[in-house]
Amino acid sequence: MGSNSFHMVVARLVHGEIRTLEKMGEKVQLGAGLDSNNRLTEEAMQRGLACLGRFAQRLSGMPPEAVQVVGTNALRVARNARHFMARAEKVLGYPVEIIAGREEARLIYLGVSHTLSDDTGRRLVVDIGGGSTEFIIGERFEPQDMESLHMGCVSFRNQYFPDGKITRKQMDRAITHAEQELLNIRQHYVKRGWQSAVGSSGTIKAIAGVLASLKLTDGTITMDAMTELRKRLVAMGKTEKLGDLGVRQDRQSIFPAGFAILMGAFNSLRISDMTFADGALREGLLYDIAGRIQHEDVRERTIQALQERYHVDQHHGGAVEATAIAAWQQVAEAWNIDTPVDEEVLRWGCRLHEIGLTISHSQYHKHGAYLLRYSDLPGFSQQFQRELATLVRGHRRKFSSSIFEELEPDDLPRLRYLCILVRLAVLLQHPRNHEQPPDITLTPASNGLTLTFPAGWLDDRPLTMADLQNEQDYLAKQNFELTVNA
Amino acid sequence: MGSNSFHMVVARLVHGEIRTLEKMGEKVQLGAGLDSNNRLTEEAMQRGLACLGRFAQRLSGMPPEAVQVVGTNALRVARNARHFMARAEKVLGYPVEIIAGREEARLIYLGVSHTLSDDTGRRLVVDIGGGSTEFIIGERFEPQDMESLHMGCVSFRNQYFPDGKITRKQMDRAITHAEQELLNIRQHYVKRGWQSAVGSSGTIKAIAGVLASLKLTDGTITMDAMTELRKRLVAMGKTEKLGDLGVRQDRQSIFPAGFAILMGAFNSLRISDMTFADGALREGLLYDIAGRIQHEDVRERTIQALQERYHVDQHHGGAVEATAIAAWQQVAEAWNIDTPVDEEVLRWGCRLHEIGLTISHSQYHKHGAYLLRYSDLPGFSQQFQRELATLVRGHRRKFSSSIFEELEPDDLPRLRYLCILVRLAVLLQHPRNHEQPPDITLTPASNGLTLTFPAGWLDDRPLTMADLQNEQDYLAKQNFELTVNA
Repeated sequence: MGSNSFHMVVARLVHGEIRTLEKMGEKVQLGAGLDSNNRLTEEAMQRGLACLGRFAQRLSGMPPEAVQVVGTNALRVARNARHFMARAEKVLGYPVEIIAGREEARLIYLGVSHTLSDDTGRRLVVDIGGGSTEFIIGERFEPQDMESLHMGCVSFRNQYFPDGKITRKQMDRAITHAEQELLNIRQHYVKRGWQSAVGSSGTIKAIAGVLASLKLTDGTITMDAMTELRKRLVAMGKTEKLGDLGVRQDRQSIFPAGFAILMGAFNSLRISDMTFADGALREGLLYDIAGRIQHEDVRERTIQALQERYHVDQHHGGAVEATAIAAWQQVAEAWNIDTPVDEEVLRWGCRLHEIGLTISHSQYHKHGAYLLRYSDLPGFSQQFQRELATLVRGHRRKFSSSIFEELEPDDLPRLRYLCILVRLAVLLQHPRNHEQPPDITLTPASNGLTLTFPAGWLDDRPLTMADLQNEQDYLAKQNFELTVNA
Repeated sequence: MGSNSFHMVVARLVHGEIRTLEKMGEKVQLGAGLDSNNRLTEEAMQRGLACLGRFAQRLSGMPPEAVQVVGTNALRVARNARHFMARAEKVLGYPVEIIAGREEARLIYLGVSHTLSDDTGRRLVVDIGGGSTEFIIGERFEPQDMESLHMGCVSFRNQYFPDGKITRKQMDRAITHAEQELLNIRQHYVKRGWQSAVGSSGTIKAIAGVLASLKLTDGTITMDAMTELRKRLVAMGKTEKLGDLGVRQDRQSIFPAGFAILMGAFNSLRISDMTFADGALREGLLYDIAGRIQHEDVRERTIQALQERYHVDQHHGGAVEATAIAAWQQVAEAWNIDTPVDEEVLRWGCRLHEIGLTISHSQYHKHGAYLLRYSDLPGFSQQFQRELATLVRGHRRKFSSSIFEELEPDDLPRLRYLCILVRLAVLLQHPRNHEQPPDITLTPASNGLTLTFPAGWLDDRPLTMADLQNEQDYLAKQNFELTVNA
């Protein structure tokens, strides 16, 4: 669900290969439906939901783990995004996620790199979207630098070409604006360098098409041809004349805005030439899902990298994870937290629960939640990051309702149960000797849990007993009854 | 200003040596004056202010950079701490700061290590305060591990010995509570190990005194003696009988609480024996001030460590700092931001302005502010960290009043001016080529600033010009007029 278009691709994974079955795309212009308070208008939401309704038919019956639905910049900035997403989930019948700009950049690179020949050398990938533009440098299938800048052809159209007129002054302003946005990354990107530059969006495809129909190039985008096109666009003066050059009507109004962003990129990054490549975000999502199915989950790498970067005690995190999973297996069904996603968020939440210690011991559960909420974590949606952050936020001290305040009401019961499991595992591993506790029997109720310990085990562990008594008080404040049979 | 006592030490620095002129201390019991909502009662504040009134007389006439006034745990937790601090500053005539637990631990170690012989080998220092207890491992003058746990003799007295009775049950509970608090650090501390254990607080001094007057030891605190004292305290049954053992009346009520914490530490950390050492937080502050005067500022090391840990582009930070300082020199007097502290916060804010990039590019000014606000930063008070965080928070994007919301009204004008200087320096260094800009003339007004550039310079730099125009709009929203003479 992009700011300009909604896309869908359906594919089948056959012996590790992805075979595309169907591609669909509609120009929804969701980003253009943001009002001055950054709220999506009802009209724009209706456009989006109608499109999703058409997509939904094709999806029905697919298993949930095979479907990924993501939103980008327009939904990142929309204040009422959640309202739209709830409605979208109803229409589609599948969960909907919003991804961060860098995650979008990573997926675009993944999609582009799989459609290119497996050449060596570094490449620059540029994708001009409706609300954001991604710049990625990578080699083969590995993105190395990922940036998502807050400029897109819909927002630039609204700001510089709202009435379909193309004046030299407005074109200059738009290009300067793009160059300003690029100032922050220019130095680093130029220093890093690349052997080939590739553009992957509909905007760049349209520019390549116009250059070819003007016979300025064979479809390659060169600096000279861009400079010439700039003059011709200003001479043309009106977007409606772009039809003569083969630009589809629904793309004409955003064409000069997209051109200005690409021109800014050529100037700023000193790009000499660029080719168009098919495949972008939606293909990236496919390869990402395929990776998960084939046990090359990029998310595992992300968790590992986080543990190393923030010097997490991995031995302790692993012990807490093992304890939590053993408990989860006994209660997952009764508490309706038995999906793969529930297990993932529980495992990773345990592994990362001490990540905030790197900032300060005091209130480290809050610092950890902050890091997980706001870091660029390859492979994770913002919703998943919020859930991880919630588990870390709630793993110690008071079990208050503020822990869950960022969640949707629907997710609250799940996360509440998962959080109780993390707390219990952290408590049982409090002595940090990393012994696994004995066979504890867990008897779940909807607002309670009974722990039955082997006879005598707790008698030798007064500290654990004291911790359990504290925990009873903490949970009782949220009307959850923890019963301990020593 | 501790949770139990307020202390003051006056000294003179003579050829690099500290000569103590005077020490004062009063049992204010500020921590005992926290009500159930963690608000200091008016009565407790009056006790504190009366004590400060007596101290103030001795301080009058000293230069501000020679006086440091810090508060610890009671003020860390008091919700109305700011109200008290504002009144304290009026009484004293000097700024008052609150320091974080780890900073307290660092200063205690500094104070203790300077009063001990310069032996080799690792040492454990324990300081039991009214509201927190610090555990530090270090060698010579270098603390290596610093922890401040949220338990102290005032809070334990209120919880376990509120009526002056000492029962076995309550003593057991208090010791178990202390052991629970220590669980988080036990493993790491025991593994690290030490050659000598030293206690530095009035509580530990009193325990050593009681052991000597009971002829259990010569004043050394041993595990055997502690075990014996535990029995005797329970047998005694009432705190008032401690007077016979030489415990001053104002210390009797907190004695068993302090004992329980030390007993917990002995058990948990397997301490065999401990000696008492004079010198603690207040001496640590003295050595810290002396270090600054003699150009061994621990804060410089902290800033350097932060830059390295979070991979800050130091070259860029340094260029922004140089640009900001050049601007500051032209306006500091007119804007009344010409103190050494103003220069420090400006320099360090510039060096660290990009620290949040490590979390995410998106909203990195907010992430940087979070890191600076909540990290344990050796040498910095919480107020100073808040000011640094404010400059980083406000260095880009909207210049809104929410940037300053955590500040006291008195500090707002200062920080607002400093923030404008950081913004200007970041803007002028936006191209990241790290050239210093030409001689710009700054003409300050109370709600405005005129920048006069050398003729022609801006003409060649349309991006900087565009940035300046944006900045005019941003600042205008806060009624600040930026005028640019190209």
